[in-house]
Amino acid sequence: MASSSASSSDARGSASEPPLQPVRAAGEYDWYGVAHDCTVKLGMKLCGFLQRNTNSNSNGGDDHSGMVGSLNKQPGPGSPSGEQDQKPVRPELDFSTLYARDLLPNKNGEEITIEFLMEVADILLSYIRKTFDRSGKVLDFHHPHQLLEGIEGFSLELPDMPESLEQILVDCRDTLKYGIKTGHPRFFNQLSCGLDIIGLAGEWLTSTANTNMFTYEIAPVFVLMESLTLTKMREIVGWPNGEGDGIFSPGGAISNMYAVMAARYKFFPEVKDRGMAALPRLVMFTSECSHYSIKKAGGALGIGADNVILIKADQRGKMIPGDLEAKIIDAKQKGAFPFFVSATAGTTVYGAFDPLHPVADLCQQYGLWMHVDGAWGGGLLMSSKHRHKLSGVERANSVTWNPHKMLGVPLQCSAILVHEEGLLLSCNQMSAMYLFQPDKQYDTSYDTGDKVIQCGRHVDIFKFWLMWKAKGTVGFEAQINKCLELSEYLYNIVKKREGYKLVFNGEPEHTNVCFWYIPPSLRGMPPSEEWWQKLSRVAPKIKARMMESGTTMVGYQPQGKKVNFFRMVISNPASTRSDIDFLLSEIERLAEDL
Amino acid sequence: MASSSASSSDARGSASEPPLQPVRAAGEYDWYGVAHDCTVKLGMKLCGFLQRNTNSNSNGGDDHSGMVGSLNKQPGPGSPSGEQDQKPVRPELDFSTLYARDLLPNKNGEEITIEFLMEVADILLSYIRKTFDRSGKVLDFHHPHQLLEGIEGFSLELPDMPESLEQILVDCRDTLKYGIKTGHPRFFNQLSCGLDIIGLAGEWLTSTANTNMFTYEIAPVFVLMESLTLTKMREIVGWPNGEGDGIFSPGGAISNMYAVMAARYKFFPEVKDRGMAALPRLVMFTSECSHYSIKKAGGALGIGADNVILIKADQRGKMIPGDLEAKIIDAKQKGAFPFFVSATAGTTVYGAFDPLHPVADLCQQYGLWMHVDGAWGGGLLMSSKHRHKLSGVERANSVTWNPHKMLGVPLQCSAILVHEEGLLLSCNQMSAMYLFQPDKQYDTSYDTGDKVIQCGRHVDIFKFWLMWKAKGTVGFEAQINKCLELSEYLYNIVKKREGYKLVFNGEPEHTNVCFWYIPPSLRGMPPSEEWWQKLSRVAPKIKARMMESGTTMVGYQPQGKKVNFFRMVISNPASTRSDIDFLLSEIERLAEDL
Repeated sequence: MASSSASSSDARGSASEPPLQPVRAAGEYDWYGVAHDCTVKLGMKLCGFLQRNTNSNSNGGDDHSGMVGSLNKQPGPGSPSGEQDQKPVRPELDFSTLYARDLLPNKNGEEITIEFLMEVADILLSYIRKTFDRSGKVLDFHHPHQLLEGIEGFSLELPDMPESLEQILVDCRDTLKYGIKTGHPRFFNQLSCGLDIIGLAGEWLTSTANTNMFTYEIAPVFVLMESLTLTKMREIVGWPNGEGDGIFSPGGAISNMYAVMAARYKFFPEVKDRGMAALPRLVMFTSECSHYSIKKAGGALGIGADNVILIKADQRGKMIPGDLEAKIIDAKQKGAFPFFVSATAGTTVYGAFDPLHPVADLCQQYGLWMHVDGAWGGGLLMSSKHRHKLSGVERANSVTWNPHKMLGVPLQCSAILVHEEGLLLSCNQMSAMYLFQPDKQYDTSYDTGDKVIQCGRHVDIFKFWLMWKAKGTVGFEAQINKCLELSEYLYNIVKKREGYKLVFNGEPEHTNVCFWYIPPSLRGMPPSEEWWQKLSRVAPKIKARMMESGTTMVGYQPQGKKVNFFRMVISNPASTRSDIDFLLSEIERLAEDL
Repeated sequence: MASSSASSSDARGSASEPPLQPVRAAGEYDWYGVAHDCTVKLGMKLCGFLQRNTNSNSNGGDDHSGMVGSLNKQPGPGSPSGEQDQKPVRPELDFSTLYARDLLPNKNGEEITIEFLMEVADILLSYIRKTFDRSGKVLDFHHPHQLLEGIEGFSLELPDMPESLEQILVDCRDTLKYGIKTGHPRFFNQLSCGLDIIGLAGEWLTSTANTNMFTYEIAPVFVLMESLTLTKMREIVGWPNGEGDGIFSPGGAISNMYAVMAARYKFFPEVKDRGMAALPRLVMFTSECSHYSIKKAGGALGIGADNVILIKADQRGKMIPGDLEAKIIDAKQKGAFPFFVSATAGTTVYGAFDPLHPVADLCQQYGLWMHVDGAWGGGLLMSSKHRHKLSGVERANSVTWNPHKMLGVPLQCSAILVHEEGLLLSCNQMSAMYLFQPDKQYDTSYDTGDKVIQCGRHVDIFKFWLMWKAKGTVGFEAQINKCLELSEYLYNIVKKREGYKLVFNGEPEHTNVCFWYIPPSLRGMPPSEEWWQKLSRVAPKIKARMMESGTTMVGYQPQGKKVNFFRMVISNPASTRSDIDFLLSEIERLAEDL
């Protein structure tokens, strides 16, 4: 039974609907009006009649009326009070009496399946429209305890007995209603923002294909797409003919971990069988501004987080090569074995690019593996205007690059690229015979699953491949350039506008713009310790209010000695100058009394 | 430009279509006929007319005609030669002149977006129907080089310039055409089979919501769903009140790795900072029939694969507790530190359940962490009839359980459950300030992202939660019982039928049924070494022919001294006795001349 009807109505408030009749949120869409409703109703009637006459010739009597029926139920906003009176014209199916067991593979489940999935698609299309609608909110905030209590009948509890398909549709609507619209043009909270339509289509297809990447046997097309795409990415990195190896992994943290594993194996292949006990004390280096996953990898792989040595960064957040060299020498003197440097191309908070050539020089000089964590900044490689910021990346032994960040590919899509071919395989291979039979009839070099630490591996490639097809390399380039232009626009405002203070000087290299907002009560004072303490409470306060008002989202954090500041990042091609303007005016509005 | 039209036609052959007019594959669906076509066409005409009169009142002139239009283009099989002459009634949009840049966020992109996604949905719905259609094939096999050469115009190459939306739709059809229908009732190749419609709906929604699990801030609903579902799973494992901790991870191999990490940290918390160098030589134990991910975890985490000691299994594939004890004692005598036993509940090939109580006794006696790898067998916990096979699992310190296997949840969905609360967090936490700000306005204990080695984490929970809602606990139970009944049916046939030989005796405990098929030429002979050698080539040969004919799929492998045999596994609720019968008759047909 549908326990919640109010929850299926529009987040921005509309009259409550009668229970058990989930009516789709449509208050703001007047494009689908009475007219269409009429014609489809007419079509349906004719259709129903004609089908009765033709079903005798058909195999199972299935039809596509679900799709039309579901369309039909979308009430037009042109019918102001008509929604309640309008009798829904669903041709036959009443989801309140249907259950999962009635869907395919149920013998007569085809029609119900099609109509049910069309209903789901309707819900998603409505959500997609809202996502891009600036007059709608980014989120409808509730505290955990509120959602757990079952707000407006939306129960998260798992039942013993099945719920009707109608309730399942209500659950889908509610799930979206209380979630965050990460594709909204005013969502600036994470490095991965936006909702790419082609990528989304790719992900729908991926989940429908529902397969696994371990072998060519069960993922022939996806495995080849991965192979070609990785080659192309390595070409873009600058490795001749795209030589090397790689894999898509579940996120940048795991990609970075692969790099550490490959490096360790390169120096000490015995580690695989004999473990770290057989090795000298390994140390690795990364800048103090790098992503925490490097330290996590050190912890997980048995190297130890203490052996992940942090190198000083300059005021812009770039690794200082002199400090790297000093610490390599120091580690050697202390009897440790330095083996790995992770240079960051696009740090998480500042968006800084470490100087790759000097780092590469040191790696060469001291015989260290050079990794570039380009999870965030790797995308800039596709822009002829901005790729110089990663100059030297072609000298790296491995590169992490997350297309789900700057390229706007849906979550998740992260690649680890390794220059030396074969290393990933020999490092991770266990040759499970039930998967990787050598006596298959096809070229088993395409059974890539033994390169990874996973067994089953989600298909992350298709959405990216499809986006590349649809946009071309030039499309990605345009998208990236646009985001960087926007951040320059923001930077130029923040630099001059009263009440703002940049966290570091100089134009942004990536789309990160970091700033404090100084509320009226704190302006014009000398920055004492007390003043900084007060300022540190401003960003969290504004953010809390921002989430409660639901109008926009931007992240904040302290870094080193710098108290809480906002970090703006732009990776959503839907965002425009007006959204940047909106963000600033919203910060000012929310901080008026601070 | 659409480079391939033939490739968009039915896999089972149909006349080639004129180029640039991708016509959807529909040869086998006569449920959607001329009648419906006519009515919708009529509807469309009326619709177009009425819309012209109402668009002046509408906001942007959007309509839902795409959905009807796309429906309309589905040619009816009742129109044998009519397909070519039939003018597609697509109301306005010509995808051959439209590009990704015309979609949202393009200012006028809403209508194009809706219609494009409806086209994609049509393609997927058509695929779903085919998936459940026994008269259709499981796959259309091609060698890697054939697909790479661009079969029937299907080019995998990534272009510099964008391709039209029409070509993108063709690419989607081609991708599905050359893929494997893992949801087909006759696909028995992997532990994860089937295409659950509710789960699929859940995955479509997940990809549309496109968010990340690290914080409540950006995934409030999903984070709570995960928390409630994990609690319920722990209750089912048998931990009082569902106490403990857990996380959904990218697959069983990573879940097992988490277990090893948690155990190592429990004994030696200093490993996180100081690494394996600070520890004695650790050893861990798992049966020789266990999944290779345990050894992989040992290799990755710096323990060393040699320190993953394999325990002998009996003829059924169950770990022999006596050998475990002997090897624990032996390791201690050699100065190593035994810390971890992974017992398998449902081995990959035999489907064996290790004896959990005796293993638990030994773990208790020798102070070892007990892990249960129930990736495959965990599902049986939801069946009151079969859960006794995991008796003792409640004594484990950690459990891996993959709902994407026996419960039929779409890929991927794997849980690691840990009995001791707080361990995952303290083991993996790095407290990145840009994500896990302690001064947020909500209860930050729901920011679960610091428990994991990933940073961003895909939302794997929603599809599972939604399936649980839709089926109830009882629905999962029925599904599991049905699959196990089927395997019993298969076992009983194979036991008696001429030409079959079981790999091990006794009724299957899980759905795995392992057997050799002995072709006519090898029957009635004493099994010499040469005979076994010949037999070892039979399964690969049959499998190759099976894939080429595309009718069904089942896995094979050797194990230990046992030459290549078939491993049947049943986890698809769509499979029936007739599919089992079909598989056997197909094996016999394909091996007739062997």
